[in-house]
Amino acid sequence: MSRYRIGFDVGGTNIAAAVYDEHYNMIEKASVPFPRGKDVYFVCRVLKNLADELVFENGVKKYDVISVGIAVPGSIDSSGETVIDAHNLGFFDAPMLTASKEAFSEGKEITQNIALINDADAACLAEHKKGVLRGATTAALITLGTGVGGGLIINGRLFKGGRGSGVEMGHMIIEQGGERCTCGNYGCAEALCSATWLINQGRKNFSGMIKTLAGGNIDAVTAKIVVDCAKAGDEVALSIFNKYVESLSSFIASLVNVLDIERVAIGGGVSGAGDFLVNPIIRKVGEKSFFRTHGDIAIAEFENDAGILGAALVHEY
Amino acid sequence: MSRYRIGFDVGGTNIAAAVYDEHYNMIEKASVPFPRGKDVYFVCRVLKNLADELVFENGVKKYDVISVGIAVPGSIDSSGETVIDAHNLGFFDAPMLTASKEAFSEGKEITQNIALINDADAACLAEHKKGVLRGATTAALITLGTGVGGGLIINGRLFKGGRGSGVEMGHMIIEQGGERCTCGNYGCAEALCSATWLINQGRKNFSGMIKTLAGGNIDAVTAKIVVDCAKAGDEVALSIFNKYVESLSSFIASLVNVLDIERVAIGGGVSGAGDFLVNPIIRKVGEKSFFRTHGDIAIAEFENDAGILGAALVHEY
Repeated sequence: MSRYRIGFDVGGTNIAAAVYDEHYNMIEKASVPFPRGKDVYFVCRVLKNLADELVFENGVKKYDVISVGIAVPGSIDSSGETVIDAHNLGFFDAPMLTASKEAFSEGKEITQNIALINDADAACLAEHKKGVLRGATTAALITLGTGVGGGLIINGRLFKGGRGSGVEMGHMIIEQGGERCTCGNYGCAEALCSATWLINQGRKNFSGMIKTLAGGNIDAVTAKIVVDCAKAGDEVALSIFNKYVESLSSFIASLVNVLDIERVAIGGGVSGAGDFLVNPIIRKVGEKSFFRTHGDIAIAEFENDAGILGAALVHEY
Repeated sequence: MSRYRIGFDVGGTNIAAAVYDEHYNMIEKASVPFPRGKDVYFVCRVLKNLADELVFENGVKKYDVISVGIAVPGSIDSSGETVIDAHNLGFFDAPMLTASKEAFSEGKEITQNIALINDADAACLAEHKKGVLRGATTAALITLGTGVGGGLIINGRLFKGGRGSGVEMGHMIIEQGGERCTCGNYGCAEALCSATWLINQGRKNFSGMIKTLAGGNIDAVTAKIVVDCAKAGDEVALSIFNKYVESLSSFIASLVNVLDIERVAIGGGVSGAGDFLVNPIIRKVGEKSFFRTHGDIAIAEFENDAGILGAALVHEY
């Protein structure tokens, strides 16, 4: 008898879903737009319909689906029932576990074995099960996107925070009194290591190659443009990029010094910079590490599929 | 039948030791000067003699001693056999487990059940078993002394670092590019939150009440003098102290944000400042914490006896 698992990655733009076999090989994936402005009960019925389609189209028997995991971009309460704050979805104190169990029990066709997971935690599980964190007992995934997030594996298990509130690595303070962070604090990793920081710097220094690649339109500046200009040797972009490397290496070195992490994966949009980013990071973390040697640092393996795979994995961790 | 445990706290000035009953009530303690310049084999024979005296004087039968723990101010390799670096003891790559087993097997009188532990880790165990961290599943002890160290409890167990190299909380970077740290890096917690920082600032600002309390002798400035002057309302000292609170709260908030720690204990010499320190710290960590609420913060309960008690506890964690 075959057994299947379904993973959802609920984002503010799209909802992605996939069916996996028992070895977490993807059978099929699909996505639909996120229904903006709808409540959590509506959204969960959308999830159920998407699951039904995936299952139907691939000849999977519904009662062979043994679990459903749902990744959301926000914080989940320690009981795993409520999405406390996922502002991109418009969910605040949303009873998503109840809502999804209600939706999935219609006709009792798909498992009641449902769990919620933070999307960065999900991506961390994906890397740990099948990606660059494979085999490590202590590992971190850092995601460098609009914000800075991440997931932490300690003793081979997902660490959800001592009080169950989650791991907020992006709000490690690496430069107290520094730039203001979205959280209201100053000098957090999120303020200095996000794609947003690169974009803001590119706009503040809108000249030379950055201006050219953005077609003269300051609103068209992306983190990728700044990184590409740095790669091409543009001096303004290089100086922005070097400051970014300084901050990101401080952040990773801090994590390494506190937890002596075996392996760190760098994911999120900025990780697209690849070796151009990871090579100076490895060198600088070496300089800033207290230990004679430090754990491995690598670009994350999964990109878009990390959330759905990690969501499908939630019952394993 | 009674069972006893012995704990040692080996410092660069004194070696302290105590015998505990099975409930970790102290039966008796004793100390001898640390034999400077002697090798690890010599030092371990000193430990054995001290244990013999403690046992003899208290009528404990040697074969009722079921374990010996030895706390050292330095890093221990992941196998628990070698003191990699305890510069205050002059120990580098010192085979202390072998040396202590040799010493304690003379006459086969005292247990071979011996383990080494870092002294900050030991203090953390003491607080967790019997002090202010009691009952917490995730907890940290931060020691503010000449340097900044600490121990970490995760999931109720002592966390020794992902690769077993230890937890180097003091080398969390909280102000990148800031003051130089003993480790060669810049802006570590140790550089900004140690008693050493307070002393250096008191010397740099040697005037007013600080100068008076130090008897006009700049070398007599201590962290306690700076704190006492701040308590008394001296403006220079207050401005130093406020900067200290800023740094220490950034450090603790960083830890809290990354690990969502249930309870944090503040130990080491500076913790003698008591409520005058911990009250503004609680307020500031609240401001800098990502979470709506954060875990408890309190002054550590044990002071001098934390190391010996924690050493006696090592076999429990």
